[in-house]
Amino acid sequence: SVVSSAKKTPTAIPSDCVINLARGDPTMYQPYWRRMGDKCTVVISGHDLMSYFSDPGNLCWFLMPELDDAIRRLHRVVGNAVVDDDRYVVVGTGSTQLFQAVLYALSSQDNPDTEPLSVVAAAPFYSSYPEETEFLRSGLYKWAGDAYAFDKDGAYVECVTSPNNPDGTIREAVVNREGGKLIHDLAYYWPQYTAITGKADNDIMLFTFSKATGHAGSRIGWAIVKDKEVAIKMVKYMELSSIGVSKESQLRAAKILEVIAEDCVNSGPEKEENFFEYGHRLMSERWEKLREVVKRNGVFSLPKYPRDFCNFKGKDTDPSPAFAWLKTKDGLNCDNLLREFKIVTRGGTNFGVDSDYTRISMLSVDEEFNLFLERLAAIKGTMNGNY
Amino acid sequence: SVVSSAKKTPTAIPSDCVINLARGDPTMYQPYWRRMGDKCTVVISGHDLMSYFSDPGNLCWFLMPELDDAIRRLHRVVGNAVVDDDRYVVVGTGSTQLFQAVLYALSSQDNPDTEPLSVVAAAPFYSSYPEETEFLRSGLYKWAGDAYAFDKDGAYVECVTSPNNPDGTIREAVVNREGGKLIHDLAYYWPQYTAITGKADNDIMLFTFSKATGHAGSRIGWAIVKDKEVAIKMVKYMELSSIGVSKESQLRAAKILEVIAEDCVNSGPEKEENFFEYGHRLMSERWEKLREVVKRNGVFSLPKYPRDFCNFKGKDTDPSPAFAWLKTKDGLNCDNLLREFKIVTRGGTNFGVDSDYTRISMLSVDEEFNLFLERLAAIKGTMNGNY
Repeated sequence: SVVSSAKKTPTAIPSDCVINLARGDPTMYQPYWRRMGDKCTVVISGHDLMSYFSDPGNLCWFLMPELDDAIRRLHRVVGNAVVDDDRYVVVGTGSTQLFQAVLYALSSQDNPDTEPLSVVAAAPFYSSYPEETEFLRSGLYKWAGDAYAFDKDGAYVECVTSPNNPDGTIREAVVNREGGKLIHDLAYYWPQYTAITGKADNDIMLFTFSKATGHAGSRIGWAIVKDKEVAIKMVKYMELSSIGVSKESQLRAAKILEVIAEDCVNSGPEKEENFFEYGHRLMSERWEKLREVVKRNGVFSLPKYPRDFCNFKGKDTDPSPAFAWLKTKDGLNCDNLLREFKIVTRGGTNFGVDSDYTRISMLSVDEEFNLFLERLAAIKGTMNGNY
Repeated sequence: SVVSSAKKTPTAIPSDCVINLARGDPTMYQPYWRRMGDKCTVVISGHDLMSYFSDPGNLCWFLMPELDDAIRRLHRVVGNAVVDDDRYVVVGTGSTQLFQAVLYALSSQDNPDTEPLSVVAAAPFYSSYPEETEFLRSGLYKWAGDAYAFDKDGAYVECVTSPNNPDGTIREAVVNREGGKLIHDLAYYWPQYTAITGKADNDIMLFTFSKATGHAGSRIGWAIVKDKEVAIKMVKYMELSSIGVSKESQLRAAKILEVIAEDCVNSGPEKEENFFEYGHRLMSERWEKLREVVKRNGVFSLPKYPRDFCNFKGKDTDPSPAFAWLKTKDGLNCDNLLREFKIVTRGGTNFGVDSDYTRISMLSVDEEFNLFLERLAAIKGTMNGNY
């Protein structure tokens, strides 16, 4: 009576259906994990994982030790973050919950008369930051917009997303004033998206299982935190908002991260490609195809990214971001234009910039990505006729 | 290379160690689930459950259809809640997250000048309500204390917990004024804790996997909601706070709830006892032992509960709440007194009442519960000598 989760075979996409590339659902990695067979399978009995507690002696008492170990091991193998023993790992229900835990940790004070902490990010910024900061109308923190335009004195938090969502650029803090705290959202600082140029060593770094491996449904994110008091307050937030994080997801994430790390260490010319090699190959191929279509039809432009030496891959590589940051050359509303061709994206105004930009997920399944390219290629002719 | 989650054998509790019964960690059900062997085992491959989406056509797009079905089926079998097709099921990371989703759903308005919505509950109330309501200093809602003392005009939300946490009483709303909305927290309205006297049919009902079956580590809760707009806003909250809920946990909860429902339907005199029969037998035995100790030592008192006919069990039953609401007869601080005997509980002031009360989890493992009884029994002698 052992049950396996439902296995659905992908259904063909009707050629006239709407393609939704607004959210970055990372389904493109599924074939890789299918190929891995049972290597990452977890088996959970009815009596397993029952308690609230995972590691009562740990500051983050709901973090499973095997996940803590797997996270640190993978960062060491990839070389994208410092995870020395004096750093705290806090697990969350996706990095979304951790972002809010950080805001709480950096702003919770005993004095109720203090002004809400200003939260800023350089435009174009991740579209969810303003809404996640504002939706509960917290008196602890408030969204203060584009970091480039921020001119208030006093305490503030700047979100530094690098590589950036939506535009894929490598970023550093822009405000750089007294009283500033930084959140580094490093969701895309993995070898399939960008060159790993060094170990990130920031005060608060956020990562997410979704973008690292494609397992968005598990809702696992983690923070690597230098300051103990910040980590303690983040854990307090997690207790109050959800009394910890799914253990089933933690167990599975631990297994998958372990397998990736192991494969990376054991890779060589005669071995099968590891997860990041696979991801980078796919992403590079997609970007090459996309650039070709954009070049041919002449309606749009894409950002150019500098080549850089990747310590993990051991060679110069071109970035291949998780999103295409597409711009219409003539200033037309890019999101609206694509919607006429049944391509749903997320328009520039959501990211604090003009509507001639739009963000397109590069992480959909092959069939959807190819249909997107076909439709994008078709826009040229129509443009000549109708505009 | 299939991995099973770590199986730890329970370690013996040193007789001088502190027993923590402050949190209601429902570990007492583990032997039942161990006895079930592979009946509830789930197997999850590396390529399963990858997308953010579970059911894009459903209002609650991250809810797995098999969990939706299992929840409705179990409520129908137990007869503790109306789950007709016009009710919406919203899944959360425990009912803790859903409680906050409800506050957001009932209070979010377009008008920023509106007063924060008052949130009340009759004392003694669940100790986390005030903190969960206050910790982000939301401008949408604020904790307004004991419902019995609430005398403000205008909109308010009353939390009705029945059976009540901490004191196990059956409750109804107490404010009953124009402009009031109700949240029914029915975490303990299951046959092992109380008589099922009818199908609850309230506007917003919260349940949790933790207390229903003992799987606290999965962090699965669900709301049954009448009003579509409320359900939509709750889903919006879930999107903004964590982009949905762990699919691994949902898959496992679906399997376990299905098995329980199936066993209940197929139970009979010659069959093994079903989960609720097992749970009720254990809880009844524990309550009998506890009442015996309390009666013998004369220092404490416990609430008395009326017997009632349970539709599910088909006979009159005594309630056996998940927590003991213990009171010192002479007004001493009950929590402090127990701490001297290395029993950690949650004192009455956390629940909005006096310190002569304290809340004690009845859901710990056998060995811990028995040690608790031993220590409680020993208090009498000391009391005579020292106080």
